[in-house]
Amino acid sequence: MKPKENATAPDTGRYAGRGVSASKHEVHAVVDKLDCGVFPGAFCKLTTDFLTGNPTLCNVIHSDGSGTKSLLAYLWWRETGDASVFRGIAQDSIVMNIDDLLCVGTTGPILLSSTINRNARNIPGTVLAELISGSEEFLQTLRDLGLDVRSGGGETADVGDLTQTLTVDSCATAILSRKAVVDASRICPGLAIVGLASGGCCAYERDENSGIGSNGLTSARHEMLSKYYAEKYPETYDHNIAQNLVYCGPHKLGDALEGSSLLIGRALLSPTRTYAPFVSSLLKELGVARVLALIHCSGGAQTKCLRFGKNIHFVKNNLLPTPPIFRAIQKASATSAREMYQVYNMGHRLEVFCAPEDAPDTLALAANLGIEAQIIGYTEPSRYPNAQNHITLHTHTNEIVEYK
Amino acid sequence: MKPKENATAPDTGRYAGRGVSASKHEVHAVVDKLDCGVFPGAFCKLTTDFLTGNPTLCNVIHSDGSGTKSLLAYLWWRETGDASVFRGIAQDSIVMNIDDLLCVGTTGPILLSSTINRNARNIPGTVLAELISGSEEFLQTLRDLGLDVRSGGGETADVGDLTQTLTVDSCATAILSRKAVVDASRICPGLAIVGLASGGCCAYERDENSGIGSNGLTSARHEMLSKYYAEKYPETYDHNIAQNLVYCGPHKLGDALEGSSLLIGRALLSPTRTYAPFVSSLLKELGVARVLALIHCSGGAQTKCLRFGKNIHFVKNNLLPTPPIFRAIQKASATSAREMYQVYNMGHRLEVFCAPEDAPDTLALAANLGIEAQIIGYTEPSRYPNAQNHITLHTHTNEIVEYK
Repeated sequence: MKPKENATAPDTGRYAGRGVSASKHEVHAVVDKLDCGVFPGAFCKLTTDFLTGNPTLCNVIHSDGSGTKSLLAYLWWRETGDASVFRGIAQDSIVMNIDDLLCVGTTGPILLSSTINRNARNIPGTVLAELISGSEEFLQTLRDLGLDVRSGGGETADVGDLTQTLTVDSCATAILSRKAVVDASRICPGLAIVGLASGGCCAYERDENSGIGSNGLTSARHEMLSKYYAEKYPETYDHNIAQNLVYCGPHKLGDALEGSSLLIGRALLSPTRTYAPFVSSLLKELGVARVLALIHCSGGAQTKCLRFGKNIHFVKNNLLPTPPIFRAIQKASATSAREMYQVYNMGHRLEVFCAPEDAPDTLALAANLGIEAQIIGYTEPSRYPNAQNHITLHTHTNEIVEYK
Repeated sequence: MKPKENATAPDTGRYAGRGVSASKHEVHAVVDKLDCGVFPGAFCKLTTDFLTGNPTLCNVIHSDGSGTKSLLAYLWWRETGDASVFRGIAQDSIVMNIDDLLCVGTTGPILLSSTINRNARNIPGTVLAELISGSEEFLQTLRDLGLDVRSGGGETADVGDLTQTLTVDSCATAILSRKAVVDASRICPGLAIVGLASGGCCAYERDENSGIGSNGLTSARHEMLSKYYAEKYPETYDHNIAQNLVYCGPHKLGDALEGSSLLIGRALLSPTRTYAPFVSSLLKELGVARVLALIHCSGGAQTKCLRFGKNIHFVKNNLLPTPPIFRAIQKASATSAREMYQVYNMGHRLEVFCAPEDAPDTLALAANLGIEAQIIGYTEPSRYPNAQNHITLHTHTNEIVEYK
């Protein structure tokens, strides 16, 4: 049970001020003693094939959810009466699992279950119905895109003493050939890092995607939205947060987002894009030997890669353009560039680590799917005597930030 | 995604007053259209073997958690400083999955993952550490008892805007032979119902178990504990509940429980007993052909069986003695007998449906493990012209209650 989104998240600043903690020393003391599976440096924990006992296979079971993004759906629904917005939350919860699994080379079949913990007073059956049918619909979409994911059921629990609104979580299981595993421990100096855009409107999306994904939404919600929401919906925030950090932004959900076709609310609620069609074609075309690592820039955002490989200096000096939603968040909050890149993906949510000569094929596959992509950087040996991993990141305003 | 604990739970009364809803019409409208798997009348949803594609096998993925029992652990920990109480919550979350899986005949291997959603201000790393190491320890206990369950990891998410405390959920996956499936649709007239005690101290438990399990804990907590807890720990209840239903009981956690060696707090926190060793030996000794159904009396408690089989009258006229914790809850709350048996297991959490001639072997296997058991009733044809399932239950005070 690894701590979720924060091993590399900021320990101070506005993020920490909202009770999202990076320091989990006691947890690490326990977790570090746990079995780390058959590919200890891989993106997800992979275990011995307990399920069928085949020594050439391994298992993965993965849990994640939509986090506090459900609160944005709640606000939108309460303001507009449109409960269908929760269908996107179902997608978020699923993609947060699926796209992590992609990063170890799982391209299906995947068996999935979901759990909704709700306050029945605030979250009626109409919302549950949208979540459930939204899940089913999105799983069908994934299957239509070539990823065989099936629902094995789920749970809805009424726990009004635990939440004023709802949590939406999913769990995904797969069995894969050990030979098919993309093992991120193979990250070494001399690789190109190809970044795939989190936003835009790719070939298999109907609407513009803001690129927000499902990380950083606690901060994004409070930084962007105005006190109106605190006053009208006190059930949507932790009353122990300092008031100056609660819904301290300038916007209403219906405000236009500068540089985008989306309203602010819709941009914050953009369902997390899946990279499943891309990863499937990449592994088919290049093969696992040439795809050295896949990193889903979820918790920790642009610093996520720090946890993988050894003795690596990650240079990110050519990032994709920053999508309007992140520019708007930074403008509204005056959050430091350092924190922005730790909390938000800032433009790409998937990284492919490959030999520089394999980058053109990788870019071509992304282009086929209408996903913007470019070589956003490279790896070289760590510059530290103790060989620790570190990142040098050039922000979109040409600031240079180091993470280690 | 089936609604959890309430399809047969009371829709009025004190239970509903605390926001635990039985009416999920919109949900059923959606869920009823979903694929119900390869054994539609089984205790859990079983799917085609998506994971390995073998037509002789099927898959199960199951999600459930400790519900609001985590709040009792929170109160105990805050009052005593003893965070180890959360180890029992880890057990609860696991057993709520494992014991459902047992009811379709899964006796391992099982792959498990857990998710903790917490408020980092109120739930520090010390609590997470107890939950994580408690999970690992309990999984080892299960393996020592012969059930091969393995952890594949988990997630901890900081979602302070969603919860003031924490939710602890798990998800379990298994692959099983279709021939090994215990299919509860085989419930027919003429069977004995053997009930296995939820409480006492069985051969593989160290301490007395109150039998409370992990269902009905919202009501039990409020009915038993005093306003002291509402005043001191406002983060542990839904402030939209009518004040007369909030911590409206006579007790402190440290009060003695009449008729038991346990304190009230410890009794409410008794970790949910697993029936894994019993079910493993039962299926080994009797075989799946003779074990017609296994019912885990979780949500819906003594009315859970209503959902299984067709045209059945369940007669429960010889229940096990009611454990002290349930007597104390009824005394404190003056809850009707009708509601008590819908919310709390009242003495047995597992039912074996078998031919009357197989009951003695079943009872002997329970006795071997130190689990009190007896024939608690039988099945006969429904007495209704429309053939609907119904239950006639004789309470411990010789009231006769009907459920349908």
